This record gives sequence, structure tokens and C-alpha cells, in this order.
Amino acid sequence: MQAIELIRKQRNAQPLSTAEIDWLVEQYTREQIPDYQMSAWLMAVCLRGLDARATSDLTLAMARSGLELHVRETISPVVDKHSTGGVGDKVTLAVAPLVAACGIAVGKMTGRGLGHTGGTVDKLESVRGFRSELSREEFMQTLLQHHIVLAGQSPELAPADGKMYALRDVTATVESIPLIAASIMSKKLAIGGSHLLLDVKFGKGAFMKNVEQARELATLMVEIGRAAGIHTVAAITAMEQPLGRAVGNALEMAEAIAILRGEGPADVGYLCYHEAAELLMMTGKAANEQAAEQLVEQAVRSGAAVAKLAEVIAAQGGDARQIEQPELLPTAPVRALLMAPRSGYLAGIQAEQLGLASMRLGAGRFKKGEAIDHRTGFILQAKVGDKLEAGQALVEIHARNEGEAEAVREELLRCFSWSDSPVKPGALIYDVIRP
Amino acid sequence: MQAIELIRKQRNAQPLSTAEIDWLVEQYTREQIPDYQMSAWLMAVCLRGLDARATSDLTLAMARSGLELHVRETISPVVDKHSTGGVGDKVTLAVAPLVAACGIAVGKMTGRGLGHTGGTVDKLESVRGFRSELSREEFMQTLLQHHIVLAGQSPELAPADGKMYALRDVTATVESIPLIAASIMSKKLAIGGSHLLLDVKFGKGAFMKNVEQARELATLMVEIGRAAGIHTVAAITAMEQPLGRAVGNALEMAEAIAILRGEGPADVGYLCYHEAAELLMMTGKAANEQAAEQLVEQAVRSGAAVAKLAEVIAAQGGDARQIEQPELLPTAPVRALLMAPRSGYLAGIQAEQLGLASMRLGAGRFKKGEAIDHRTGFILQAKVGDKLEAGQALVEIHARNEGEAEAVREELLRCFSWSDSPVKPGALIYDVIRP
Repeated sequence: MQAIELIRKQRNAQPLSTAEIDWLVEQYTREQIPDYQMSAWLMAVCLRGLDARATSDLTLAMARSGLELHVRETISPVVDKHSTGGVGDKVTLAVAPLVAACGIAVGKMTGRGLGHTGGTVDKLESVRGFRSELSREEFMQTLLQHHIVLAGQSPELAPADGKMYALRDVTATVESIPLIAASIMSKKLAIGGSHLLLDVKFGKGAFMKNVEQARELATLMVEIGRAAGIHTVAAITAMEQPLGRAVGNALEMAEAIAILRGEGPADVGYLCYHEAAELLMMTGKAANEQAAEQLVEQAVRSGAAVAKLAEVIAAQGGDARQIEQPELLPTAPVRALLMAPRSGYLAGIQAEQLGLASMRLGAGRFKKGEAIDHRTGFILQAKVGDKLEAGQALVEIHARNEGEAEAVREELLRCFSWSDSPVKPGALIYDVIRP
Repeated sequence: MQAIELIRKQRNAQPLSTAEIDWLVEQYTREQIPDYQMSAWLMAVCLRGLDARATSDLTLAMARSGLELHVRETISPVVDKHSTGGVGDKVTLAVAPLVAACGIAVGKMTGRGLGHTGGTVDKLESVRGFRSELSREEFMQTLLQHHIVLAGQSPELAPADGKMYALRDVTATVESIPLIAASIMSKKLAIGGSHLLLDVKFGKGAFMKNVEQARELATLMVEIGRAAGIHTVAAITAMEQPLGRAVGNALEMAEAIAILRGEGPADVGYLCYHEAAELLMMTGKAANEQAAEQLVEQAVRSGAAVAKLAEVIAAQGGDARQIEQPELLPTAPVRALLMAPRSGYLAGIQAEQLGLASMRLGAGRFKKGEAIDHRTGFILQAKVGDKLEAGQALVEIHARNEGEAEAVREELLRCFSWSDSPVKPGALIYDVIRP
């Protein structure tokens, strides 16, 4: 086989065979195919597309390119959960312990934030002592002992994805639905859970800007999951305004704890309970929605859910007292209020802009590898649909110093749009794709 | 400016500005943009296209990437000629001295053969002592003194093209009409002649497989020439059967000499005289076609044309006696005849297959840098439309040894197709594109 022939086929929109895709990924991982050939192939994929079969083959080849954990051979059912990322998205932090508290094991690896969307690992690391970098043995042992593990993404899993993603990142080949699907799913396949719930977000604050793209990505990932023998369901959810009220690492951690206690904001609480219930139904733990909701409610009410979060935090070296008493989580030295500049109904909160503003407070990364400040961010005092009077509190700013808190005010104000007549926020869960 | 933004624009089919294209080519030539970004951009060009303005900009940027000779500032008019390549294409070898013998200077650089089509430099080098690698000074001096120079392509001219072509060659991005046009024209612009005649070939033996592609390429190159201030005309010519009767380096040199003496095969002779006449009209040396044809005829009849070829050969270190007495050109030790396997009308000669067969005799290169044997090749004893009896001579094989002559017979036979009813060969010149 020759790389140039496979590039030419892709260029001419002729589907590559399974053997050809296997060879391409294997040779690229072993550095037998240079970046300049792979980037030409990737651009041809962006512009010519990849059908579901070829995308499945690519995903499987990437999953096989490094360490494979096969967790479902050790413990089953074992669920995984993935969100394509949004602003204020602390859903994984709540859903994982909720499901585990209901008796279903959760084995998850999760990424760091980059750009306007935060990363679950960063939020977890706002807890003192928490270790996200686990060895294979630590990952498996934590999962077996506690039925929950929340680790950082290991570079040993699906190294082909790491190498290809770095190349896509500098060659304008990120925006391809088949390549996005393969990248996400290859890491899930390498872990090897039995059930996977995907949260595919769309809207101004998400990577997928419209629902059609989100549906295409969701459908493709469900199909890849089916081909790989993982029971996969994808929820298509809106990301227009931030989820919940907290944006920022420790602030979101505290909000996740509130959700687990039944005290979180309605929108994100609804999404967390719904996703947890979906996983309980998928695994057969609950026979129907009503039974699933009862299990979730019980885990919250009994304190089992928040106790499970404290347990996994402790298991991974973190200070569980910060979960039991979230006021012990790190706090920013400066808190300042931004007031509503006018009276009226809050019509929109630009999630992406708000995420970028939080980055300027130190809560996120402009470049890979940058340090972040876990303490900073925002607490929204109002959400879309709320009626406010001019001068009422709109956002609580959590900043490192007065200067940064002041500097962000103007940008923050531009995130909000207003209406004189009542506004009804859109539905959060748009659709659910099942295999 | 950032390379990734320019790749993204091209990917999204948004035309790059002149400044953006200049920057891209300059940075790539200076190795400030890595191959993996350029190959992604090139693939996006292949699949999204490039409009005429952007293609002109790319060509100009490539032409400016290295040495520029500006020959028309030293001598004017000064013509250049380019063929996209065919089998048995010795037209440049005849047209250049013909035009120069009529008093119009010809400054030409020309490539080596690769694959089934031969290169003019290789044919010239079948003459003992001929030097194609000239310094800038030698090129200019030969042109000034003899009003003709036939040099090999200097890597100092349009180095961006050399670097991009090498990359395209391994990333399946060769087949793009704008990129082909830019590659050809950048080298012509760097020489800087005043008039340029292009021979764009189409058909089974050519790079452009159909006339629509050839027309698109021809039109684009005429437009690039116009934008660069070079009077450019493109003939669209058929390349179904080989041109003339000789295929192979010394054999084609001898045929070119015969054409210059008025003794060549009708088809290729017609094309040479027509192209020479076109150049005489373009430069204003002849007021109309009739006057141009008279000038050409006179140059042939007087012996001035063949004398001009001998002159340039001598000026570049070659043995001019081999031009005056072509029987002194190197000859292959083995000559064998292939006979017609049946009676009938010759319906077709697969030029590409015949070119490949000549490569197996040593006449061409499978890989860049390979040595070739100037002596080997074929003399066709019949052309399309001829009526033959079974057992009549079809091809004279010129080989290094009996084994190779035998080995090629079967492949050769497959190059010919037959008909029981009369066959009329198609027209050679399909169209002429003028600015």
C-alpha cells in the first residue's frame, strides 16, 4: 500500500477499505507516514467526507493504536459519559457520582479546557490534592474499589488521535464531523465501557453551531458505538446561554455539589438528573423513566450522591472535606457585582463571549499548557427569561484583583441582550438519538 | 498573517487576497511554513479550486521566489514555447531553430522526461558534448550571440515551484488545473520572454485526458500570461497516437532534423511549421498566416533552419556534425522489426502505452534521476489510417540487446488497434486560444 494512493482515493471521494484505513492509521502512528501526507488526507476528508463505515473503521483503528483498557471485561455494566463541551457545563461532575451512587460503575477519562469551554479535570483539580493523572493500575483499582473513577485523558490511549488532533489543529482540519466523531469515540473505545451517554451540544456557545450539525455528529457517534459493541445514546442539547449559574472551576465544583444535594439551579439540575436517569435505563438498572427518576431522587435525598463524589475525590488524593463543606473550596479574593444596565426581560446570554470573559479572569486557557486560576469566574444572578429592574444584580464577578474585575465589566455587559416583552427560554434537551 | 487562517479560507472556498498569496508563497519558500500546512492548503486548492485572479497571483508569487531573468529587457521580441508533453513530441526541437532562423530570438528552458513522456533536454543530450546546464551568464550570452538558447530548467528560477511540485508529487495534489497552470507559467514568467506559445495536449497519451480540461488549462495560462504582460497564445492539440514516427531520444533528434530539412513525417511537420508560423505572427514578424508560412518554408528550403539548430548545439558544447550528418547520432546495437499481426486499417496507437514500452528499452525514466539510454526507442512504420497487410513492418525496435527487443514485442502489439473499414485520423490542432 502507498499513502499517496490512499490520499488520491479520498481526494476522488472513493471510500477507503477497512484494510486501507487500518494501514494508514498504523503507519502514521509509527511515523512511517509523514505529517504532510496525513494533512493532505485529512483535508480531503474534510472536503469529501467519510461515510459511516469508513468513520467506524477510522475510529476503531485509532482506538487500537495504543493502550486499550477493556474495562467492561473487568466490571459490567460500566458506563462512560461525554459532553462535546459548553460554558458552565458541570454535568459530568454531577452525573458520574449520581449514577455510581445508584450502583452503576462509572469509568471516565476527561480532558482539560481549551478556549471558551472548560474541562472537567480542571474543575476537579480545584479540590486540594486531587490527582487526575492515574496509571493504568490506579485507574482500574479505583474503578473496582469505588465503582467510580474520574481521570485525566491518558496519552497512552488512542495515541493516533493525539497525533492527528495536533496536526488537525494547525492545518484547519478540525471542523469535520467524521473526524470529530472519530476523535471522541476512539478514546471511548480504548477505555472500553459497556454503555456510553453522549451530550452533543449545539448553539452559539458550542462547537456545533446548529442542530443539524449536532444531529449528524450524534447519529454518527451512535453508529460508531453500535459498530464497536458499546450501547451508545446521544442527547442533543442546547448551549445558547451558560448551563446553570456558575462559570469557573471551583465555582462550578460548588454548583455540582449543590446539584447532588438537590439544591442546584433548575436548568442544569434537570439535565443532570435526566442524563443520570437515561444511563440507569440504558444499563437496565431502571426499567423505565419513572423508576430511574426515583432512583436518582433517592440518591440525592439520602446524601448518597454527594457522598459518592466525596469518595472518589478522596480516592484520588483530594480533600473530601471540600466536598462535604464546599465553602472550603478556594475562593477568589475579589467579588464584585455587575448590575443590570436597564429594566426588562433577559433575552439572551452569549455563552461563548461569557466563556472568553472568564478566561480573561484566569479561569481558562488561551493556549495549551497555560496555568489557570481555579478560583475565578462568574455567578450569574439572572438567566434568560428573568425580569430585572435596572440596577439589580446581574453577575457576581470572582476575580484575582480589583483591576481584572473592573476590566471585564464592559465585555460582560455585551454578553447580555434584553427585551421589553416576556421571553421564554428554549428547551434544553432537543432530541435523543438511540441506536 | 497565519498559515492556518489561509488554509481555512481556502478550505471554505473564500478567495485569498493577493497579499495573502504572496505571503504564503514567500513564507513557504523561506521554510517558515511547514510542508504539512502547505499540503493541506494544496489539497484544499485541488478540491475547492482557485479563480483566475488567485491563480495569477500564485503564479507571480512563485515566479518572484527566486532568480528572474527578465530576458525581454535585454532582447525583444524574445519568444518562449512550452508543450505540456506527449509521446514523440519533438516539436520544440524543430520550432525553436525555425523561429530563430526567421530572425526572432528564442530563450527557452526545458525539463527532463519523467514517465511516459520524453523531455526536450534528454533529446538534446543525445548529441555528443551538448551541455544543458547553463549559468545565468551563459544563458544570456548564448541568447544574445545566437538568438537562441535551449537550456535545462534552472533550479534557481521559481524555487517555490520546485518545492511545491515535490510536495504535490507525494500528496496526490498534482491533478489540479490551477496548480498545473501556476507551475508551468511561474517558470515562464521567471525567464521573462515577450511572447509565449503553449501547446496544451489532450488525449490518452497526454496529462489532460479530455479537451475540456485542456481548454480550461489553456485559457487559464493565456489569462496568466496576459496578467503578467506576456503575449501568450495556446494551441490545443491532440495526443492520441504518438507525434511523428520516432519515439526515443536520438531517434527523435534525427526526426527533428528531418523536419527542419522539410523531410519529416507529415503530422509532426505540419504542427511544427504551424507553431513556428504562429510565433512569427504573434511577434509581428509576419503580417499574416501566408507571410508566416512563406518565411518558414524559406528557412527550411535555404537550410537556415537546420543550420540554426547546428549553431545552438555547437554554442552549447555539442558536436554540430551530428546535426549536419544525423547518421552520426548514437544508434542502438539491435534493430528488430515488429510485423503487423493482421491485415486491416490501423485504427489507433496507444501513445501512453507506447511511451511506457520505450521506457522499458531504457529511453525514459521511471524515477527522477535515473540514467537513460539515448539510443533506444521505436520508429513507427505505420500511422493511424494506414492500410497494412499481415506481416508488413509495423514498428522498428531500437534496443540495447536482443532480449529487451524481444521482451517488448507483446506489450507493443497491445498498443495497436485495427479496423476492417477505412479510418480517418482526427485533426491534430483542435483549437487556438488567444488573449
